[in-house]
Amino acid sequence: MSTRQVAGVDLGGTKIEVAVFDDEHEVLGQSRHPTPVDGGPSDVAAAIMIAVAQACEEAKTKPDDLAGIGVGSPGVVDTLSGTVSGARNLPSWEGSFGLGQALRDKFGVAVAVGNDVAVATDAEFELGAGRPYQSILGVFWGTGVGGGVVLESRPWHGRGAAGEIGHMVVRVNGRQCPCGRKGCLEAYAGRGAMEARARKRHADGEHTDLFKIMEKRGRTRLTSAVWAKALEQEDKLAGELIDEAVEALGAGIASACNLLDVEAVIIGGGLGVRFGEPMARRIEKEMAPHVFNTEHPPDVHLAGLGDLGGALGAALLVRRAGG
Amino acid sequence: MSTRQVAGVDLGGTKIEVAVFDDEHEVLGQSRHPTPVDGGPSDVAAAIMIAVAQACEEAKTKPDDLAGIGVGSPGVVDTLSGTVSGARNLPSWEGSFGLGQALRDKFGVAVAVGNDVAVATDAEFELGAGRPYQSILGVFWGTGVGGGVVLESRPWHGRGAAGEIGHMVVRVNGRQCPCGRKGCLEAYAGRGAMEARARKRHADGEHTDLFKIMEKRGRTRLTSAVWAKALEQEDKLAGELIDEAVEALGAGIASACNLLDVEAVIIGGGLGVRFGEPMARRIEKEMAPHVFNTEHPPDVHLAGLGDLGGALGAALLVRRAGG
Repeated sequence: MSTRQVAGVDLGGTKIEVAVFDDEHEVLGQSRHPTPVDGGPSDVAAAIMIAVAQACEEAKTKPDDLAGIGVGSPGVVDTLSGTVSGARNLPSWEGSFGLGQALRDKFGVAVAVGNDVAVATDAEFELGAGRPYQSILGVFWGTGVGGGVVLESRPWHGRGAAGEIGHMVVRVNGRQCPCGRKGCLEAYAGRGAMEARARKRHADGEHTDLFKIMEKRGRTRLTSAVWAKALEQEDKLAGELIDEAVEALGAGIASACNLLDVEAVIIGGGLGVRFGEPMARRIEKEMAPHVFNTEHPPDVHLAGLGDLGGALGAALLVRRAGG
Repeated sequence: MSTRQVAGVDLGGTKIEVAVFDDEHEVLGQSRHPTPVDGGPSDVAAAIMIAVAQACEEAKTKPDDLAGIGVGSPGVVDTLSGTVSGARNLPSWEGSFGLGQALRDKFGVAVAVGNDVAVATDAEFELGAGRPYQSILGVFWGTGVGGGVVLESRPWHGRGAAGEIGHMVVRVNGRQCPCGRKGCLEAYAGRGAMEARARKRHADGEHTDLFKIMEKRGRTRLTSAVWAKALEQEDKLAGELIDEAVEALGAGIASACNLLDVEAVIIGGGLGVRFGEPMARRIEKEMAPHVFNTEHPPDVHLAGLGDLGGALGAALLVRRAGG
């Protein structure tokens, strides 16, 4: 039994994805659980514990034999203490909760916690589509639109709140964003905002198959798979909302590139990964009219690690800490 | 006679500002010339040579006794060779010209050339309003809107084209920018774009005193002073255009801060310096609804070095090179 196995936890607003990796970043075991929608932080922690135990079982190991557990979490993360604050996509998590400590107490192993988008960007930079570059912008297109910045091969976090590409303004006095502000990229491209808009237009009488597809799949929310299926069926409303999203992504990502002149943009996240390569090309095309450095536009790649990037980035946190 | 005196040249689209500094960055002599509007790069170089000689005369020295000459120039600058390319605000300067070499040949002293916005940001960071910080965004509001980024106390240039905050998109499918793109911050806030819009609305029959003030001052363009005077007289059209500009600046600067989470924003440039502290407060107020890091919004300061920041930053180039 190796003690170099590490579990990576990708804690999202809809699901908890756990994978156990060996030294070579190969997946030995995996599990996926829905994120609890009721209760509070300790319920989320309990769900993580179950998911970690299951992934370990598949990997034929036990949690307390792991070299450590890494967690990528939404919200503001104090990486030293493992405390997570203001994770607004998680239930009743407005305040602070010692997620790292809860997992340490449970399993008695090293636990490292980082911001979900930051660790996913890091994974893409180290092991994914960002490997050939020294400077990248990671764009994670899912419920929200998250961003990660790597400059001179090092992550740039500012004072802890950098990378909020989803809250760059693409239209002054524009659409209301779930964050409460106006005209943010996320107001047009976030899956949450897109769903709210689809529900409203549907309630106002517009035809769409989005909700039929959702129900048929036993879902209560418009998941990335539901959007993909609707696009495949050439659903008009879904097509229009995706067009708006891609237009906003093009402008917002190009704006970030005009400010930073990074070598490459990596597109990930639930929608990004689901839509895949053709969508990366569409986003690149929408960026083009706005990119200032026309002689050297940034390369645009789909995330190389797919759905597992978050879990792998979380595992890297433990490796960095010497696990 | 000291050999530690350095001349700094701020080469702008409308004027050439030269100052001779001593070791303590004190101004010993100064001169200002209009930038030639006809001819080409060598005519601009000739005008710089005259301005340098005059500033030296006022400083009671001679150009060939200087420790060196630093130049901040628009366009793409090859700092090693001193070659300037694609300076679209300078006459017939689409191609490349060896500006550094021309000045070296003329005066026989060390010459260092850098990008105008980059050197002005550097000067504010080292000696101006940016001194207390490790990370700043410099915003130079003039004919265009230029930006400079300092992270971890070092300038970030990307692959040479970073800092183009004026070409961040604040309105998808928005107003035509002088750069040819649509919806850029500069399309709303650049003095060039504002003048074009004022001329059009005036020609269409709207009342404004902007052009009367301009003529009275013997100008052919709406300078920063003309705008300031019109605002002072509560000219309606001027007020509306400035309102639009400030709204766009607020959104664009906040977007940049949401991406980078810098500690401070420094507002300079012809219009920024002319309008002064009250305008810095207005811009800060327009940023507020868009700033994501509400717990720690960036500090917003007026440039501390005023009009001389560009020349001082250019002089610092020579100091850095050991001059």
